[in-house]
Amino acid sequence: MSDNFLIPRLAIIGVGLIGGSLALALKEAGAVGEVIGCGRGKPNLEKALELGVIDTYERDPQQAVKDADVVFLATPVKTLGSVTQRCLPGLKAGTIITDGGSVKGDVIKAIEPLLPEGVHFVPGHPIAGTENSGVEAAFSSLYHGKRCILTPTENTDTHALELISQMWTLVGSQVVQMNYEKHDKVLAAISHLPHMVAYSLVNAVGSYDHYEENILEYSAGGFRDFTRIASSDPTMWRDIAETNRDALLEMIEQFETSFIELKADIAEGNGEKLFEFFLRSKQLRDAIL
Amino acid sequence: MSDNFLIPRLAIIGVGLIGGSLALALKEAGAVGEVIGCGRGKPNLEKALELGVIDTYERDPQQAVKDADVVFLATPVKTLGSVTQRCLPGLKAGTIITDGGSVKGDVIKAIEPLLPEGVHFVPGHPIAGTENSGVEAAFSSLYHGKRCILTPTENTDTHALELISQMWTLVGSQVVQMNYEKHDKVLAAISHLPHMVAYSLVNAVGSYDHYEENILEYSAGGFRDFTRIASSDPTMWRDIAETNRDALLEMIEQFETSFIELKADIAEGNGEKLFEFFLRSKQLRDAIL
Repeated sequence: MSDNFLIPRLAIIGVGLIGGSLALALKEAGAVGEVIGCGRGKPNLEKALELGVIDTYERDPQQAVKDADVVFLATPVKTLGSVTQRCLPGLKAGTIITDGGSVKGDVIKAIEPLLPEGVHFVPGHPIAGTENSGVEAAFSSLYHGKRCILTPTENTDTHALELISQMWTLVGSQVVQMNYEKHDKVLAAISHLPHMVAYSLVNAVGSYDHYEENILEYSAGGFRDFTRIASSDPTMWRDIAETNRDALLEMIEQFETSFIELKADIAEGNGEKLFEFFLRSKQLRDAIL
Repeated sequence: MSDNFLIPRLAIIGVGLIGGSLALALKEAGAVGEVIGCGRGKPNLEKALELGVIDTYERDPQQAVKDADVVFLATPVKTLGSVTQRCLPGLKAGTIITDGGSVKGDVIKAIEPLLPEGVHFVPGHPIAGTENSGVEAAFSSLYHGKRCILTPTENTDTHALELISQMWTLVGSQVVQMNYEKHDKVLAAISHLPHMVAYSLVNAVGSYDHYEENILEYSAGGFRDFTRIASSDPTMWRDIAETNRDALLEMIEQFETSFIELKADIAEGNGEKLFEFFLRSKQLRDAIL
């Protein structure tokens, strides 16, 4: 029977929005046999069981991964190395480990050296998420139409890569492959830098104390979006800022160059250059629509 | 008959999204007798007539404002002084001029010195808008539930202020009064600075050319919002950057202080300070929800 499934036995380490949604989507696609959940919180695992996200759970990673064909690591990015370490004694040869971490270089450096012969690792990053977390937030269409970036290294097994690619395609993702350096720079540019900018903006405006009221109260339209971004989980963003430090600093400098140019145009009241600056941005944006 | 209307005769100079929506909303509220449109484009005025936004139009501002009780100036912020100048010969004593410009200090300096005895000016700024422009984009509920900031000066007539306040209340706005210096700083903080940051961000990321593809292609989620903001009308934003220069530069420095602090925390890999920085932002935001 189990031969009919793409993944007869799937272990999800960290059953929250990301891990839970993958389990639900694979079940819906008929691509998975049994799903074993593992995580620190028993109430969350009970909830996952109740919601049908997982079929059973184990508190110990080593037990959870036993006989698993695929292990999906969906714990915070800084924990992925130590979580892998705890899985090791239970892993059988042929098991494929993959992850959903938003930084890839650091994760690869933490995981690859740990793995015994025959255990494969496919580094991945589904670019999807909502503002909610926990297994109650999981839903099967989270990955529909979203990009999933896989970042194989020279050590990555071709068949393992193929299977994980199929897995993400089955849940509706558009799978893209690139090396981890590029992934980390692209994500620094389109996600990590914008978050840093939004956090700084909200801190700058919110701490402006020349008036009795908090001027953030007046925020409307576009600024609402900034404040929404700037209310993302501080722990997650601390981890990203730490683990993708170099790529992020490069993008910060790229941004500063651009911002300093604009500031000079404003200070000089140079209407022609201001217009060109704004037009360039509009054109860059319109080119991707 | 006309005594039943709050505004028996209303002239709209610039019949686009802002001016057109005000006319529609006042008509719907039964608060206006006749609406005369004026603007540079004849096709747009014909369209406004066809859509019932205005009842008649004049190409010449001097003709349009004849016998008007209220004149609403809704042309680009840098043109408001010269448009007022062109209206002058047609204005009767008792007419109230008001505007919708997003910068108030510059506009007050341009308009107040021009006005003859008996013609009143109430500087205003309805904080509403959409990405669309032109009279086809106008709709009567644009101002529902939105703030409208009025910035009276020592020269502002009390009765005129009262009437314009009533007008905005009638169309569903929440009217707030403050001095123009505060308006210009608040708007610099919550609108103009975020736009400058979004424009810089899109230019920085879009001009990153280490890869063959445009990495803006990967933008998703939060970054989509930034790129949307950064595709706003370059002419309008050039004018705002020019006319609200000082307040904007002050807010830019406020932002830079915050951003430089964050950059240092990232460079040092100072997890504790990073967490505090992100948490502070989250708390500032949660306080306004």
